[in-house]
Amino acid sequence: MNDFVIRGDIAYCPTKEQLIAVEDGFLVVRGGLCELVCTELPQSAQGLPVHDHRGKLVLPGMADLHIHAPQYAYRGLGADMELLDWLEHYAFREEAKYADLSYADRAYTIFADALKNSATTRAVIFGTIHTDATRLLMDKMEESGLVSYVGKVNMDRNSPEALTETTEGSFRETVRLIRETADRYRSTRPIITPRFVPSCTDELLSRLGRLAEKEALPVQSHLSENPGEIAWVKELCPDSRFYGEVYDRSGLFGGSIPTVMAHCVYSSDEEIALMKERGVTVAHCPASNMNVASGIAPIRRYLDLDLRVGLGSDVAGGHTVSLFTAMAEAMQLSRMYWRHLDSTKKPLTFSEALYMATKGGGGFFGKVGSFEPGYECDAVVIDDSTLPHPQELTLLQRVERAVWLGGDRTGLSAKYVRGQKIL
Amino acid sequence: MNDFVIRGDIAYCPTKEQLIAVEDGFLVVRGGLCELVCTELPQSAQGLPVHDHRGKLVLPGMADLHIHAPQYAYRGLGADMELLDWLEHYAFREEAKYADLSYADRAYTIFADALKNSATTRAVIFGTIHTDATRLLMDKMEESGLVSYVGKVNMDRNSPEALTETTEGSFRETVRLIRETADRYRSTRPIITPRFVPSCTDELLSRLGRLAEKEALPVQSHLSENPGEIAWVKELCPDSRFYGEVYDRSGLFGGSIPTVMAHCVYSSDEEIALMKERGVTVAHCPASNMNVASGIAPIRRYLDLDLRVGLGSDVAGGHTVSLFTAMAEAMQLSRMYWRHLDSTKKPLTFSEALYMATKGGGGFFGKVGSFEPGYECDAVVIDDSTLPHPQELTLLQRVERAVWLGGDRTGLSAKYVRGQKIL
Repeated sequence: MNDFVIRGDIAYCPTKEQLIAVEDGFLVVRGGLCELVCTELPQSAQGLPVHDHRGKLVLPGMADLHIHAPQYAYRGLGADMELLDWLEHYAFREEAKYADLSYADRAYTIFADALKNSATTRAVIFGTIHTDATRLLMDKMEESGLVSYVGKVNMDRNSPEALTETTEGSFRETVRLIRETADRYRSTRPIITPRFVPSCTDELLSRLGRLAEKEALPVQSHLSENPGEIAWVKELCPDSRFYGEVYDRSGLFGGSIPTVMAHCVYSSDEEIALMKERGVTVAHCPASNMNVASGIAPIRRYLDLDLRVGLGSDVAGGHTVSLFTAMAEAMQLSRMYWRHLDSTKKPLTFSEALYMATKGGGGFFGKVGSFEPGYECDAVVIDDSTLPHPQELTLLQRVERAVWLGGDRTGLSAKYVRGQKIL
Repeated sequence: MNDFVIRGDIAYCPTKEQLIAVEDGFLVVRGGLCELVCTELPQSAQGLPVHDHRGKLVLPGMADLHIHAPQYAYRGLGADMELLDWLEHYAFREEAKYADLSYADRAYTIFADALKNSATTRAVIFGTIHTDATRLLMDKMEESGLVSYVGKVNMDRNSPEALTETTEGSFRETVRLIRETADRYRSTRPIITPRFVPSCTDELLSRLGRLAEKEALPVQSHLSENPGEIAWVKELCPDSRFYGEVYDRSGLFGGSIPTVMAHCVYSSDEEIALMKERGVTVAHCPASNMNVASGIAPIRRYLDLDLRVGLGSDVAGGHTVSLFTAMAEAMQLSRMYWRHLDSTKKPLTFSEALYMATKGGGGFFGKVGSFEPGYECDAVVIDDSTLPHPQELTLLQRVERAVWLGGDRTGLSAKYVRGQKIL
């Protein structure tokens, strides 16, 4: 059961520097785990069913570490404001609609379908404050076959009325979601989701921190995205030395609690040191960082420091769920960083970008995002034959083209999650 | 003949600030020219055949002011170097292949097909130094139905051997192409194309300037793309005050000769003043500026100064022919410029981006890129129904989404060039 072989043109990154490419190779999968990549099947694997994807690319599934499901409906709209104005004028207005379950049903059906048909196999997702809509979102994600963490958002201050909870209510509803979804899913789990410091009181943060620990749940939030936001946090928490410290003193900043923080564009030296110490994962969201004018995150620095770094689409700060696009944009922004901000910070290579989209982000889910032995088999099969070319191309070149030219329509022709074929 | 009506959801920009959107509107076309956009057909237009595109978007065709046809084959490859290294390792090696007409035939067939199936209706194109391959490219472009200027590239110094012409040979071959293609096409014309100052001697530039004037041909080249390139030009032409002056003293910098210069990322105040005085058109190529790490062009400044500015895909510095993508990237880069380089330079608006892609660039071809009376009717019909959404959208929002989410696959369902339906 769940033992099989994927045949195709296989590529993956076991390290940031190494892109392994095996033409007409075999990926042996046993019990849903990768066992071996090879060009000739060993005796022991010869009886296994072969999924024949010859001529197509086989890549690890991508992990989207930061995406707002309720914002998918207005991706590509209103990218004319910076973060705080944009939240008020677009994000919050749209999110208020999810009090209506029939709207949520329509919107989340579209969202889950889009993720299913992308190269993403794992996602860390923001819902809204609405518990029932978030449970509905979890149902849709479970149906999609992807593995995901889905958060009911917590907001008990500085938010529009329709999205402002009481501290007690926010906490209680979070507990309710955890209770109601326990043992309900195979692939979908809740995640503790304080929106960001400006919209959460210290008391709420503390209670969420204790809850994360008690329930052994991971945490997601936003961090140091924009100078105005950072100044606001300093004003709200004058005794904090840096933004991340506010999460940390509530037990919401890594350590024993797996934590992913989106953006980290302007993290201070102290904040970076604490992220490293606590094993906090950075979700780099280049599209969003451009669209809402946040700025360019110092990803080269994070990679050099061996921080955990993955990619996020950050829909709808980002306009597309495509992590292929996120890879291209991460490379593009790193070039602008090198050119305009710090010429000692070498631009990202293709293999670094692919690593971040796969094994880098996959690490938040365990042994995910590579085809090394023991890794859960998440794989996407890409038909790149729709991208005509007059010359011979190497497999590495085909992978590079598929990423740069694929965008939203990847040529996805099959998809495996934890060794299950879901497409 | 060539009198008809296009019915659909029409949008266009008569000015940078104004985006006109007419739901279920009519665009009356007579003799290939736009006559009127209205919501009710006047008596005089009621007998005309109606092309019914109800429910679809009708936008002006886009003008791609800078694209290298021979580089299309390796778009999306090797974006890991900055300009001068990239030219040597990728661009020049690929361009040398176009000495082989059968390779050129395969590659240019793919290229012309891609442009035909994009939202582009006008293009200003670099070929290679090879006269016969460039004529073949012109044949393909003519077959595509698009209107284009196509240049045989001139290079008589500092180039790899396979791409280095003699001064005399370069000039003579340019004349040959002009002769051989005179009266050969309806929609395709040659354009004088010195590659850039580093690869052209003063003598060659002077002879090309006189040729442009004598033959009343437009000019295209590269300008102030990259600091290393600019330093090289200064070294090669120590008596020049700025890069553009080198073109100018050879009569290759606007005035009576319509001239488009790609990039202008680092143009000095004097250079900008001369571009303004001479009416030189700037081809802004945001993807390329990121991919080969050139930097962010000060487009807000150019717009404020009322310079002529359009967009270029700059394939294969850019990785896609999509001017929808170029619009999005121009907006994104303008946000990074505002954030990191000069906070007095307001980010580009959507209407400014659409203006640049249509009327801004279209101006290089005459009255092109708008649906105002007297404009040549270039139009693209976009089926945006493949982009699902749970909420009501205004027509303006639909246009914005189509651009941000469309990318390479625009949902193009019909295309008109100079009043001819070509798709």
